[in-house]
Amino acid sequence: MDRFTRHPLPDTLRIAIVGLGLLGGSVAQGLRASGFSGRIAGHDLQDATLQAALSAGVIDEGAGDPRQLFMDFDLVVLCQPVDALLQFLARHRDGLAAGSATVLDVASVKAPVAAAIAGTPAEQRMVPCHPIAGRERSGWPAATAELFHGRLCVLTPADGIAPHRLALAETLWSALGARTTRMAAEQHDRMLSATSHLPQLLSYAFLHSLAARGGAEHWLPYCGTGFRSFTRLGGSDPALWSDIALHNAPAILQEIDHFSASLALLRSSLAQGRSADLTEAFAQARSFHDRVGLQQPATAA
Amino acid sequence: MDRFTRHPLPDTLRIAIVGLGLLGGSVAQGLRASGFSGRIAGHDLQDATLQAALSAGVIDEGAGDPRQLFMDFDLVVLCQPVDALLQFLARHRDGLAAGSATVLDVASVKAPVAAAIAGTPAEQRMVPCHPIAGRERSGWPAATAELFHGRLCVLTPADGIAPHRLALAETLWSALGARTTRMAAEQHDRMLSATSHLPQLLSYAFLHSLAARGGAEHWLPYCGTGFRSFTRLGGSDPALWSDIALHNAPAILQEIDHFSASLALLRSSLAQGRSADLTEAFAQARSFHDRVGLQQPATAA
Repeated sequence: MDRFTRHPLPDTLRIAIVGLGLLGGSVAQGLRASGFSGRIAGHDLQDATLQAALSAGVIDEGAGDPRQLFMDFDLVVLCQPVDALLQFLARHRDGLAAGSATVLDVASVKAPVAAAIAGTPAEQRMVPCHPIAGRERSGWPAATAELFHGRLCVLTPADGIAPHRLALAETLWSALGARTTRMAAEQHDRMLSATSHLPQLLSYAFLHSLAARGGAEHWLPYCGTGFRSFTRLGGSDPALWSDIALHNAPAILQEIDHFSASLALLRSSLAQGRSADLTEAFAQARSFHDRVGLQQPATAA
Repeated sequence: MDRFTRHPLPDTLRIAIVGLGLLGGSVAQGLRASGFSGRIAGHDLQDATLQAALSAGVIDEGAGDPRQLFMDFDLVVLCQPVDALLQFLARHRDGLAAGSATVLDVASVKAPVAAAIAGTPAEQRMVPCHPIAGRERSGWPAATAELFHGRLCVLTPADGIAPHRLALAETLWSALGARTTRMAAEQHDRMLSATSHLPQLLSYAFLHSLAARGGAEHWLPYCGTGFRSFTRLGGSDPALWSDIALHNAPAILQEIDHFSASLALLRSSLAQGRSADLTEAFAQARSFHDRVGLQQPATAA
């Protein structure tokens, strides 16, 4: 299925997963699929989700009092949306300082996470992670053991993080089928604003421009496969993406301006009938498309 | 494979296909797959393409002198790109007037085709068509018998077109697995500028904004499945799309402005941290996405 050697986690490891949505649910299911047979505790604000994860045998128990998490477990994987994660980190600052667990998160923006733990003991316990994997559906029902197969996970730990904590994080992602790489949080956020957050916003903006006017519903039957592919991201959870966008706003605003400059260039070539210029700009665009294609991950969706 | 009843074409019909690229090649292959065993003649400017189609047994012969086409065949399907099609129609105006063939084209813009034949005898012989089907690859190697399966084909004939010619066009598309619908050429072009030409341009503009600056190549390994889906259209042929865009420029320029208004609205909500407004705009966008999803064609790609 993928070409990476997986290093299984030792079954003695006590693991807690907070938030059993698409990502947390997929971490839990992926761990089971990797052969991990130690105990996994789960925590979710929605009791129905917790019960579903228990019934499926993916988790063994509720994780109990969140304040105890960092004492009672060796590895705590925080899988809430950005805003909820930041609130959780603020609320449980003392527990995090007192415990000895290695803590991971999976949020799509990393600088606010770094800022939330900067100068606290958590900074040396936590390995902020962003697995570049997703689906436009969200929640436990969308979770799948294969979500991270062949994907890349970016780790943005603070300088001086203990090697055994970093190794644990890397082993977890390897067990889930992902490769890892390290990067500064700000660099990650700038890159993701261009490669992920902006496409998401443009997809929404395009759909909004259709939804915002009367009559476009008559066009629904004529939206072909190109339309569907271009707007696939537009099926994603609005609250989740509003959350991500606001936590990376400065970088995204800059990317919107880069994009708008390119769009203005294409617009003026089109308005002035400059065929050669338009073709040349399209060709530049396609060359980037083709270079991405050569980077095909092990299991492309 | 699809839920439409196919009406096969009579094997006595003499068919010529001009341009054996993605669309013309797929028409020819689809006809063979539908069971049509009459003779199919093909014409292509590239001898290698003609030879490939002959070797594959998809066409039986070269179509010979293009000026004779409209005399020698019952059905002539013109499958050139827009600009080449318009030049062909201008060059062979007399042949078209003299012959009795029913003529179809498959160009993505229809008003320039209508204008090219307006007031000439061709207007009553020709059923302009646009099968809403495509791939980002082009040319004979990309052609496939299934290209039109479950797709919608828009016909934009002039008023007063003879019913038997319209019926022949509808039967052809039915044989190829597509449904047909009728519409005015201008209405078609306005709709396609929004649902197809604009997404194509935005995909190029986004890729251009990355290609145009240094350093973005470092991001290549981090472009996930969302990026790939959003930019799939960016792999399309630049010259082909420059051609289409320039022939529908006024409508596309208007759509760019609609889009830019939506993007400006999202941008200001983001810049001002107006979370509720951002979420609401994203939700409007998603509702359009979901309504398109309900229109799932018979065989969605």
